[in-house]
Amino acid sequence: MPPILTLTTDFGVGSPYVAEMKGVMLSRAPGATIVDITHAAPPQDIRYACDVLASVTPRFPAESIHVAVVDPGVGTSRRIVCVRLAPPSRHAFVLPDNGLLTGILASQHVAEAVEVTEPRYWLSPVSATFHGRDIMAPVAAALAGGVEPEELGPAVDTASLVRLPPDLPTISPSEIRGRVTRADSFGNLITNITRADVREAGLADRKTVVVVAIWPESDRIQSNESERNLEIRRIVATYADAAPGETVALFGSQDRLEIAVSGGSALRELGATPGSVVIVRTAGR
Amino acid sequence: MPPILTLTTDFGVGSPYVAEMKGVMLSRAPGATIVDITHAAPPQDIRYACDVLASVTPRFPAESIHVAVVDPGVGTSRRIVCVRLAPPSRHAFVLPDNGLLTGILASQHVAEAVEVTEPRYWLSPVSATFHGRDIMAPVAAALAGGVEPEELGPAVDTASLVRLPPDLPTISPSEIRGRVTRADSFGNLITNITRADVREAGLADRKTVVVVAIWPESDRIQSNESERNLEIRRIVATYADAAPGETVALFGSQDRLEIAVSGGSALRELGATPGSVVIVRTAGR
Amino acid sequence: MPPILTLTTDFGVGSPYVAEMKGVMLSRAPGATIVDITHAAPPQDIRYACDVLASVTPRFPAESIHVAVVDPGVGTSRRIVCVRLAPPSRHAFVLPDNGLLTGILASQHVAEAVEVTEPRYWLSPVSATFHGRDIMAPVAAALAGGVEPEELGPAVDTASLVRLPPDLPTISPSEIRGRVTRADSFGNLITNITRADVREAGLADRKTVVVVAIWPESDRIQSNESERNLEIRRIVATYADAAPGETVALFGSQDRLEIAVSGGSALRELGATPGSVVIVRTAGR
Repeated sequence: MPPILTLTTDFGVGSPYVAEMKGVMLSRAPGATIVDITHAAPPQDIRYACDVLASVTPRFPAESIHVAVVDPGVGTSRRIVCVRLAPPSRHAFVLPDNGLLTGILASQHVAEAVEVTEPRYWLSPVSATFHGRDIMAPVAAALAGGVEPEELGPAVDTASLVRLPPDLPTISPSEIRGRVTRADSFGNLITNITRADVREAGLADRKTVVVVAIWPESDRIQSNESERNLEIRRIVATYADAAPGETVALFGSQDRLEIAVSGGSALRELGATPGSVVIVRTAGR
Repeated sequence: MPPILTLTTDFGVGSPYVAEMKGVMLSRAPGATIVDITHAAPPQDIRYACDVLASVTPRFPAESIHVAVVDPGVGTSRRIVCVRLAPPSRHAFVLPDNGLLTGILASQHVAEAVEVTEPRYWLSPVSATFHGRDIMAPVAAALAGGVEPEELGPAVDTASLVRLPPDLPTISPSEIRGRVTRADSFGNLITNITRADVREAGLADRKTVVVVAIWPESDRIQSNESERNLEIRRIVATYADAAPGETVALFGSQDRLEIAVSGGSALRELGATPGSVVIVRTAGR
Repeated sequence: MPPILTLTTDFGVGSPYVAEMKGVMLSRAPGATIVDITHAAPPQDIRYACDVLASVTPRFPAESIHVAVVDPGVGTSRRIVCVRLAPPSRHAFVLPDNGLLTGILASQHVAEAVEVTEPRYWLSPVSATFHGRDIMAPVAAALAGGVEPEELGPAVDTASLVRLPPDLPTISPSEIRGRVTRADSFGNLITNITRADVREAGLADRKTVVVVAIWPESDRIQSNESERNLEIRRIVATYADAAPGETVALFGSQDRLEIAVSGGSALRELGATPGSVVIVRTAGR
């Protein structure tokens, strides 16, 4: 089977920079299958790309090779690393060591990690601003051609890989306090609260209410104050359990709590955005 | 030749949900060629996706497998179906039975239709909200691997497949009354009036005028009243027959009547949008 | 190895027209690898697409076949041409002869150029408005299948190919005067001034200042007058050499001078856009 290379960047949909990387990959790994994971990560938003990598890459076949270029530190001394996961997936990741792997490291076992220092596999010359094209793309192609991570540079301690601070909700016996992390293309607001969190808090079998902090009209940017709260009285099983126009909460396809407006856009209609506080608690409090 | 799988969704360009489906497909159908038809269908706009499937899929090779996920009914009892067309195309479609196939059914012959009920080919567990990833993608991959539609579930009567109400213009001997169905990326306004309609109405060889209803400034949303009409005096053969800035009508690449501003955007400049009434009639009336 | 076909258009990201072309290509060149270079060229912006072709296509493997459809003259007598470059790249280009090849012709050697006139390789019938699908896609597929350019139509003199007027900066011993040509997805403003231009002007080893003309607030469209100038005191090596929020100039991945705001968007924050005048001169003048 042809090797599979994936790409995750913040270059923007339609960016010719993506095609430059694909040209390099196909030149050095003829016949490879290249799949776009996303190029719509908000510029320099490492956490967004980190979450996408953690949720999407496990769907790919064994031996897939993932390149991620959200790289605000390009040109600084930040490392580029190659990390290979343990069997059975044996996925490889080639990316700047800036926290992009946080979600993967939390859920997968690492077999090898190296710093990418061996210029033999790079383009020459290497530009100061586009290591995705000049280092990461050709290194990924080299892996696709059978080069081992240990040939790319010296081993690094997995514990030394940069991790983002945890983005976890606060869980107490009767309340979970989290936040909206992003909106999907339907305007559903995805939170950092999982089905497991609700179970752990002992709220899974009880009547709960989901409270979403709504930004004041005058100040719809991230702030600690909110004008008012929106109370959602039920967590439904699926979008179709809601009446048209009803605002509901449900666990989405990643088992994360989402806020949705049936047939509409919660992002546009509710006044909550990424950053808004979301609380799950016992009803009647 | 590797099997060809296509994807048509309303997930939005750049959505990582698309990449999740591709990961599943490549895991279960190694070496498949996956082609994006579009992910820019307006959210839950079944008619848009239906028109795209009908116009684009006939361009693909025999045996292509098309997955379409515009699925406002996910989680309800709506069926998922697999429909295979008769030779020579033998294209297969895997999609919710919600009208997405209307245009295909109007123009192609069906060889087999089944309801997708056999969980053996699905991911496990199946989420309540993302059947595209958990059912349709792996079922399409199974077809790519040689599974026959009859193995996916019980046969259904083709007549029972859900069809959208017709979106046809009203044709009388001297007038055709249709509407703008969408704008393309150049701002050209595409209508539901075809070259065949104009011929059928006996207008093809006569001097015609195309009348476009313009929304009132104060109320540029879909309404039955329009402030005024724009009269276009000629149907040209190609964009290049128009003077720069001229508003013209012409039959586009799908043989549908389009309203265009030469070198500009009819959508931005005219005040007509999807939903606007368009009339073709004899000049001088 | 499977043949590689690339696509560069102004159809817009998500356009189903792109998928129609891919369907035609895969029908006529089974197993081909198709790569999107970009579909986000501004409508009918030949220069943008020309610059993209010149910078991106050299990254692709030998024998790649590039189709570009930015075609305001579709339906006029403008020619469609097929141009093959000399070894070692032997890339082929299939596109309207409207200047799209200007950048390629300036930097590469042409082995053969023909006008595409032989309908044997086209779809039938050919629409008046979509030659990308009906002529260019199937012709590119024919090339992928081994057809030679000379079979596509009569040879044309390379000197007769349409070229855009040069978009070069004015270089004098102590000053270079160029302009912003586009913004990338990070909001960096890319100019038509190259590292070689700065060297040629004798400015490479001297202390320079980069002056960017800022549009007046009241009239942020292209104009010859500017309200004021922004002076940038240094050309840094990489984005990371700038303090957060600092406005800097640097040579980007194409060796072109860029104006950037560290951690921000120069496009959004400075008031300069494509068209803005940019001057590099000795500091202290």
